[in-house]
Amino acid sequence: MMRVLRRLLIGKPLHNRELAHEKLPKWKALSIFSSDALSSVAYGPEQIMLALVAVPSLVAYGFMGPVAIGILSLLAVVVLSYVQVAKANPEGGGAYTVAKKNLGKMPALVAAGSVFADYVLTAAVSVSAGTAAIVSAFPALAGREVTIDVLVLFAILMLVNLRGVRESSNAFVIPTYAFLLGIIILIVIGIWKSYTAAPYLLPPESLARQQLDWAMLFVILRAFANGCSSMTGVEAIADSVPMFRKPEARNAAITTYWMAGILGFMFLGITYLVMHYHILPIPEVTAMSQLAEEIFGRSAAYYYIQITTMLVLYLAGNTAYNGLPVLLSIVAKDGYMPRYLATRGERLTFSNGIILLTVAAALLIVVFRGNTEHLISLYAIGVFISFTIAQSSMVVHWNRERGKGWQIRALLNGIGATTTGLVVLIITVTKFLYGAWIILLFIPIMIYIFTAIRGHYNSIADQLHLPEECYEKGAATFPEGKHIVIVPVSTTTRVVYETIKYAKMIGDNILAVHVSNNEETTKKVVEKWKLWDPGIELIVIRSPYRLLMRPLLHFIEKKEREKGPDDYITVIIPEFETRKSWHRLLHNQTGWFLRNTLIWRENVIVTTVPYHLKE
Amino acid sequence: MMRVLRRLLIGKPLHNRELAHEKLPKWKALSIFSSDALSSVAYGPEQIMLALVAVPSLVAYGFMGPVAIGILSLLAVVVLSYVQVAKANPEGGGAYTVAKKNLGKMPALVAAGSVFADYVLTAAVSVSAGTAAIVSAFPALAGREVTIDVLVLFAILMLVNLRGVRESSNAFVIPTYAFLLGIIILIVIGIWKSYTAAPYLLPPESLARQQLDWAMLFVILRAFANGCSSMTGVEAIADSVPMFRKPEARNAAITTYWMAGILGFMFLGITYLVMHYHILPIPEVTAMSQLAEEIFGRSAAYYYIQITTMLVLYLAGNTAYNGLPVLLSIVAKDGYMPRYLATRGERLTFSNGIILLTVAAALLIVVFRGNTEHLISLYAIGVFISFTIAQSSMVVHWNRERGKGWQIRALLNGIGATTTGLVVLIITVTKFLYGAWIILLFIPIMIYIFTAIRGHYNSIADQLHLPEECYEKGAATFPEGKHIVIVPVSTTTRVVYETIKYAKMIGDNILAVHVSNNEETTKKVVEKWKLWDPGIELIVIRSPYRLLMRPLLHFIEKKEREKGPDDYITVIIPEFETRKSWHRLLHNQTGWFLRNTLIWRENVIVTTVPYHLKE
Repeated sequence: MMRVLRRLLIGKPLHNRELAHEKLPKWKALSIFSSDALSSVAYGPEQIMLALVAVPSLVAYGFMGPVAIGILSLLAVVVLSYVQVAKANPEGGGAYTVAKKNLGKMPALVAAGSVFADYVLTAAVSVSAGTAAIVSAFPALAGREVTIDVLVLFAILMLVNLRGVRESSNAFVIPTYAFLLGIIILIVIGIWKSYTAAPYLLPPESLARQQLDWAMLFVILRAFANGCSSMTGVEAIADSVPMFRKPEARNAAITTYWMAGILGFMFLGITYLVMHYHILPIPEVTAMSQLAEEIFGRSAAYYYIQITTMLVLYLAGNTAYNGLPVLLSIVAKDGYMPRYLATRGERLTFSNGIILLTVAAALLIVVFRGNTEHLISLYAIGVFISFTIAQSSMVVHWNRERGKGWQIRALLNGIGATTTGLVVLIITVTKFLYGAWIILLFIPIMIYIFTAIRGHYNSIADQLHLPEECYEKGAATFPEGKHIVIVPVSTTTRVVYETIKYAKMIGDNILAVHVSNNEETTKKVVEKWKLWDPGIELIVIRSPYRLLMRPLLHFIEKKEREKGPDDYITVIIPEFETRKSWHRLLHNQTGWFLRNTLIWRENVIVTTVPYHLKE
Repeated sequence: MMRVLRRLLIGKPLHNRELAHEKLPKWKALSIFSSDALSSVAYGPEQIMLALVAVPSLVAYGFMGPVAIGILSLLAVVVLSYVQVAKANPEGGGAYTVAKKNLGKMPALVAAGSVFADYVLTAAVSVSAGTAAIVSAFPALAGREVTIDVLVLFAILMLVNLRGVRESSNAFVIPTYAFLLGIIILIVIGIWKSYTAAPYLLPPESLARQQLDWAMLFVILRAFANGCSSMTGVEAIADSVPMFRKPEARNAAITTYWMAGILGFMFLGITYLVMHYHILPIPEVTAMSQLAEEIFGRSAAYYYIQITTMLVLYLAGNTAYNGLPVLLSIVAKDGYMPRYLATRGERLTFSNGIILLTVAAALLIVVFRGNTEHLISLYAIGVFISFTIAQSSMVVHWNRERGKGWQIRALLNGIGATTTGLVVLIITVTKFLYGAWIILLFIPIMIYIFTAIRGHYNSIADQLHLPEECYEKGAATFPEGKHIVIVPVSTTTRVVYETIKYAKMIGDNILAVHVSNNEETTKKVVEKWKLWDPGIELIVIRSPYRLLMRPLLHFIEKKEREKGPDDYITVIIPEFETRKSWHRLLHNQTGWFLRNTLIWRENVIVTTVPYHLKE
């Protein structure tokens, strides 16, 4: 049953040789790697607006333009720096790999922790924003956001990714380009209308810039920090250079520029329109939806925008599935995460990482009740920490390589590192209480976990390692020891017969032990035993307190103290396996308790000879 | 930790010889065995009133007197019949034992099912009524009834009974007599006031008897059925004859008469006062509380009544703890319930039965939200079914014995059986939709469970039974067979060393098996194995689909097909036991999966040689 369902949902197992490396053309790579970055225009400008209208007295729209310009400049710096990363790392790999190579263990682990947090947030933010887009269009769905989010995560993203990356990657191209087309038309028509139609009536004071005091500065920086969420995903192309066609690095660089150009255009356009049409927050309707309705009315075009926005946002959530399981597998190979995260499942995907990501993102969404705005408060800080570390690594890299023009490259990455570091500071200060503290707490916790896991694996490896002299030819010797076999017996049955039969096969020194809590029963058992006469003496232990386990354990402990260091004690528990599981409720689980108690003793081995009931 | 807590709460284990049989004087036995019956005056008259005021147009108080008289007559019949039971069964035992002896298996199981249901309801009804008494006095507690009920069940009744019956029985005497004293004074003063004080102003039509049509008859019979709940517990003395001082049967009979007299007096008195003071249902205030307030005002006497009522009702709940675990142990000894219900725990109590009762009663209270009225709808029917069966058994008994005056005794019990059978019919008809159907469904379900359990034990006994010829002196022979030992190996470690060492001890035919999902790793492992040279060939199985379990299982299955019927295959899994439980999350649970898969195969034994990590 389970297996059939699994085949249906996930597909048949794949052979090792089916792990092919598809090389992507630029136009396809653009849609696959940049859905995360590009789709963020669906919530980025809105988040700036939300921060600015939080000003108590007046709507501070006037500052929206400058904030957007600031973010675009930051985008330029980050993109230029990341093109350097792409060129220096043709084998790909994200901040963790780059930092490990150039800066060492600790910065690499910080990067791993931040990227981990950010991938989970990418999935959570993108899915909840995608749902917000579709709920805006179909208000009947309102109130079911969390259910939709969790369904999308488990029933779509998780399943598609467990099936494997190749099947999912083709689905990227059409929705991404459809989204781009829609947004570009929206912007063009929106701007055209803003000049040709009757001028919009705006309260003049709302567009005015407020007096720039410290409180206002804080609000502006918070708006800037919110807007930085649009920049997550910019690094995706540089991390995936090997997926490009030759010349890989150059193609990756060109694709990055394209992406940055499109992102910049869309970001600026949407921000302008939000300002011009004076969009204000309305519960359960996104700013994009308001904008599209303003420009197209509730026409087919409006629904086209909403549906493609939803699709591209869900695909953006999918980029976390391309990224995190691979990152986890790299970290796990280095011993910082459980080993099984490093092995590919039957469909050649990193199944455990995919499941972990799904559960973590779903948890975040449930805790934050699918509220995009609250989730975004956690977002971006992790990305910018990893940006900073990656750029710093590149400075070290260029300084070490000292190739042609290394000074300029190092300078570029130095500017990148400084700028993104500054952004980390801004986000920390302006959003600390709004959720950034969670991430700043999460990263050290992750580092602690990483090192604890690594420490455990190291200690295990040391303890399990056979000393070198064991590998001298023929060195393996096994000291001879005695073997004591203990069989607890309640009465003479077929199970006991089978157990004794097995006991006689594995040892000569067999002790049958009967724990007695009732004199009469014991008398009968001893009598039967004598008649049956299996050639083994039955040792009777009295238990006036009616306990079964403790007297038996005392007996075993006594034998344990008497035995030599190379002797083994095997306890064989006569047990029968019932045919129906409810039957198990009708029997003592003594065997189970005994097994779980004795597993802690050295040189005591517990074995069950299961007797299978036929009925 | 757990053990210390357990000692504190439950006490130290008791030796078998500490199972003493205390003999009780009549005055003590009365308080211990009749708290259930006597305390029912706290809710019995109220339930009659509730049924009568349910008449749509008018309050049918006028019928309250006749209904009470009817119940008293029934009480007389039941008591006389049960004195017969006490005399005929000096060894005690309830309806189940008596029916098994005289009527056979089926009636006995019906009795067991009904008494089971009734004991659980005794606990649930008494506890919820006790809480209702205290909530009436302290309205601040209102709304927390279910919490209080569940606390009383788990923290008081369960713990006290797990400690043991002797300690709990002494606590019975004072509250029961305090309650009796209080109620008798209440009745005397109440009646005195009813004659001396200014006559109560009552709407005359409410006291008038309505026209007696079919609908009215139904209401009256329902009131009667409700009032029958006062009669549960009357059988307790007859069931416990051996606990009395000599002459046991006579003393038990005298105590029964005393109890019946007191119960009758109180029942009649309370009913009269409820009528006279025209008590009507008020949410969260019991009729008894209204009555006590009417007569004493909110004085100390009022609180005395409420608190002793609460105490005696909780003690009445405790009688279920004296009864049900013993009944379950008797039924379990006959194989109709899981065997472990028949064994005494470390404090000589039937711990499993006590826990079962507590959980069942708590469940009932939670499902019915602590509503005494709704719980009482289920009540009484079980008791009257068991009354009927017990009395019928006695008719058969006297007819078989034919001692002196057997005809009169048989007649007495015959009248008892007929009357109680009629009551079963009345309760079924008038309360079917109000909850009686639950019990009438529960009893056949229980009978099905009883017989299914017995069937399973019989089948097990047959299957496990060694044939008689095995008990001819020296008949035990154990056919010789081969022993194949399979050791799955991932790489050469200390764990594998220990495992091979043990394998060599238990067999000569050892197969080391390595499942390979990576050519490079396998090459290294094979090389190391050759250098180490433990004297066993390493068999390599390729697994291009990266599965570990399935290729190994296929290998074991192949060996299984090849082996002879008396050969054994032992699979020894090299496993290490981590020191901290979270470490376990970092390792594959292959051993666990393997063990759980292979336990279903005949003649394949799975053993773990646990290697204990020191760090």
